[in-house]
Amino acid sequence: MANVAGGGMASDIDIYKTQNFGNRLGFGEKAALLIVDFVNGFTDPAKFGGGNIQEAIDATVGLLAFCRERGVPVAHTRVIFADDAADANIMCMKVPSLTGLTEDAPDSQIVDALAPAPGEIVVRKRVPSAFFGTDLAPAFARMRVDTVMVAGCTTSGCVRASVLDAMCHGFRPVVIGDCVGDRALGPHEANLFDMAQKYADIVTSAEAMAALSDDVAAEAAE
Amino acid sequence: MANVAGGGMASDIDIYKTQNFGNRLGFGEKAALLIVDFVNGFTDPAKFGGGNIQEAIDATVGLLAFCRERGVPVAHTRVIFADDAADANIMCMKVPSLTGLTEDAPDSQIVDALAPAPGEIVVRKRVPSAFFGTDLAPAFARMRVDTVMVAGCTTSGCVRASVLDAMCHGFRPVVIGDCVGDRALGPHEANLFDMAQKYADIVTSAEAMAALSDDVAAEAAE
Amino acid sequence: MANVAGGGMASDIDIYKTQNFGNRLGFGEKAALLIVDFVNGFTDPAKFGGGNIQEAIDATVGLLAFCRERGVPVAHTRVIFADDAADANIMCMKVPSLTGLTEDAPDSQIVDALAPAPGEIVVRKRVPSAFFGTDLAPAFARMRVDTVMVAGCTTSGCVRASVLDAMCHGFRPVVIGDCVGDRALGPHEANLFDMAQKYADIVTSAEAMAALSDDVAAEAAE
Amino acid sequence: MANVAGGGMASDIDIYKTQNFGNRLGFGEKAALLIVDFVNGFTDPAKFGGGNIQEAIDATVGLLAFCRERGVPVAHTRVIFADDAADANIMCMKVPSLTGLTEDAPDSQIVDALAPAPGEIVVRKRVPSAFFGTDLAPAFARMRVDTVMVAGCTTSGCVRASVLDAMCHGFRPVVIGDCVGDRALGPHEANLFDMAQKYADIVTSAEAMAALSDDVAAEAAE
Repeated sequence: MANVAGGGMASDIDIYKTQNFGNRLGFGEKAALLIVDFVNGFTDPAKFGGGNIQEAIDATVGLLAFCRERGVPVAHTRVIFADDAADANIMCMKVPSLTGLTEDAPDSQIVDALAPAPGEIVVRKRVPSAFFGTDLAPAFARMRVDTVMVAGCTTSGCVRASVLDAMCHGFRPVVIGDCVGDRALGPHEANLFDMAQKYADIVTSAEAMAALSDDVAAEAAE
Repeated sequence: MANVAGGGMASDIDIYKTQNFGNRLGFGEKAALLIVDFVNGFTDPAKFGGGNIQEAIDATVGLLAFCRERGVPVAHTRVIFADDAADANIMCMKVPSLTGLTEDAPDSQIVDALAPAPGEIVVRKRVPSAFFGTDLAPAFARMRVDTVMVAGCTTSGCVRASVLDAMCHGFRPVVIGDCVGDRALGPHEANLFDMAQKYADIVTSAEAMAALSDDVAAEAAE
Repeated sequence: MANVAGGGMASDIDIYKTQNFGNRLGFGEKAALLIVDFVNGFTDPAKFGGGNIQEAIDATVGLLAFCRERGVPVAHTRVIFADDAADANIMCMKVPSLTGLTEDAPDSQIVDALAPAPGEIVVRKRVPSAFFGTDLAPAFARMRVDTVMVAGCTTSGCVRASVLDAMCHGFRPVVIGDCVGDRALGPHEANLFDMAQKYADIVTSAEAMAALSDDVAAEAAE
Repeated sequence: MANVAGGGMASDIDIYKTQNFGNRLGFGEKAALLIVDFVNGFTDPAKFGGGNIQEAIDATVGLLAFCRERGVPVAHTRVIFADDAADANIMCMKVPSLTGLTEDAPDSQIVDALAPAPGEIVVRKRVPSAFFGTDLAPAFARMRVDTVMVAGCTTSGCVRASVLDAMCHGFRPVVIGDCVGDRALGPHEANLFDMAQKYADIVTSAEAMAALSDDVAAEAAE
């Protein structure tokens, strides 16, 4: 599985290698798929979208279907603030339009192509990480998940935060490189580099599906 | 206060402005200083150091003295694994040498120039964030801190993770730009950009000291 | 302020005194009111109610009005599971009917007498504590709350869990003795005893209103 | 497996049955043993001890040996405050002598009969729960533990808090009734009742060892 590194950082890569960062985690015994914030508002460049987010959504459709066929647990996230913004937080000071993402706003609905199926967890969150202030980590622990594949957007924001927290909660994070997107490609690449060095494996969706077929299918299908 | 943006990302900056990211938080009513992982092992390029980390330590000396004079609460972090590595975690799979940072190892001691004073909190942690798996957020809440100035290393690792979690825990993060360092400058700049857009203000230590003199001195000295 | 102790535990009280448990916390500088799970399903003895819960609701009406007049922050909690129970957890194995508490179920609506006003936080939770898997602690930290008055039900369940976590998060818990209720009085009394010894002050609503008038009114009204 | 209920609460038990509380969890696929605060200071009635704590320690010796033979993961907890009490918290206001439990104090050392073996996790904590402000839940998730057997003291304090949080983190809590103790028997019984109704199974150490022999031995020995 190929690690993806940001371009133009050759000297940086050198010191990370010297210090023995970036080792491979591999898949554990039971994987889940976490799809972060693929909602309508992040497909629209006038709102929170842009860059390669639509391509990432398109690539995730096949991975999601694959996971559903094999019984791999799936969780989705949405950013949701109260209609009266009583729960607006520090991030809303940095990015005020976030409070428009209310329960019924079209912008905060998961895109049709990836609409949750019955039995799939839908996490409502108000910070970047899918795990902070939510019960997603307990849900994964209860299912004995030990590996979390991450698709979604944005790579430099909620994906990275969720990957970091997945690791902190004791799960092996696997970023699906073609299934994560960002409104701007510089931060996208820079954050893939950081995650590959310190927190996660970066693989393609094809590689992930191959790994699931080999390693996890038996248990996931239990 | 000047926001610092990574070089070579002009088009990226444009979309962040269009979408109204990067607004200023300002200081709240009571600030604390959090110094992340300025330990011996991160001053040595053969271990975890390199880049501009030593300069950041040097700049932090003055800020720490200033905070102590004014009674601003100070917290330090160290990465500490058990002598038998019974608590080794996923991050140790990515970066195996981390388990050498044990309680008594010279590499895990805070650098002499920033040695903790009596009454200052010293957080032992095993993941990037100073807040994850620790009681630092409760300590800050108990002191009614609402603003967390962050110095330390590395910008792309434990500093960013701590800044993100400070925001998630309800504190305004203020990154002290000249007091954070990284083993490599590309990730350093890229992560300052991300934090400035989404999570934190980036100010110089001179700007922070001016803000503390104006706004916080009275309460901090209570 | 009078501590409440369970009946028939005279010898137990003795050793707690000998070991110097049960000291008073007092109010800090800024209090909030947390109302735990006063929803329709907990007023019905055929569902989750019974005991002295209705009396506790009645007593809370006056305290809530008092807090609103003075600008004391108010938060409410509801237990909410997904319509398809995709988020059912371990507690649902112990108490299966909990999964009936869905977003739109009449049983999970806050009782009319205590309906949330605009700007008041409404926390959706799936475990006993108002703080676990939620962003209530960050909200309180952001508001510089340092004291959490707790009303609600049940004393031996979600009230105690919320009181414990309030303390763990760095807030002083104050249980409003006449505003907490339980389906059965034995556990009600036993848990008031435990909380008074180890985690919280127990005061009456009259005592709380007096304390707020004296100490907190100025700041709360800012 | 017999649930233990506090004496003299017959009518309370009735309503819990009517409302269908207290269902059995059973063991999952992989259990761990958590031993809470069996340190010297909790064996001394002049410090934090008394009641049936010594009997609980004696009963835990056999269970611990059994778990070690079968490769069941073991974690211990200690309450540890900094030598300068810089991390003293709200609980220290209720119980001031807690700050005497420093890293090197004899009172905070695990009792000889249960001294940790190499590879066993030792959690340092400052609040009742073994999980709050620690990385114990991530460690258990990483090992794919789904069931947490709890021994230790006190039943009404750190045991209950740890049992509650185990459940919240997605693990099935199993209280080993003869391996938990308290300085006073009233709270001991009352808290066993609460836990049995809402959070955990209560079994004897003999029952736990039988369950481990039947169900978990194969996987635990992997």
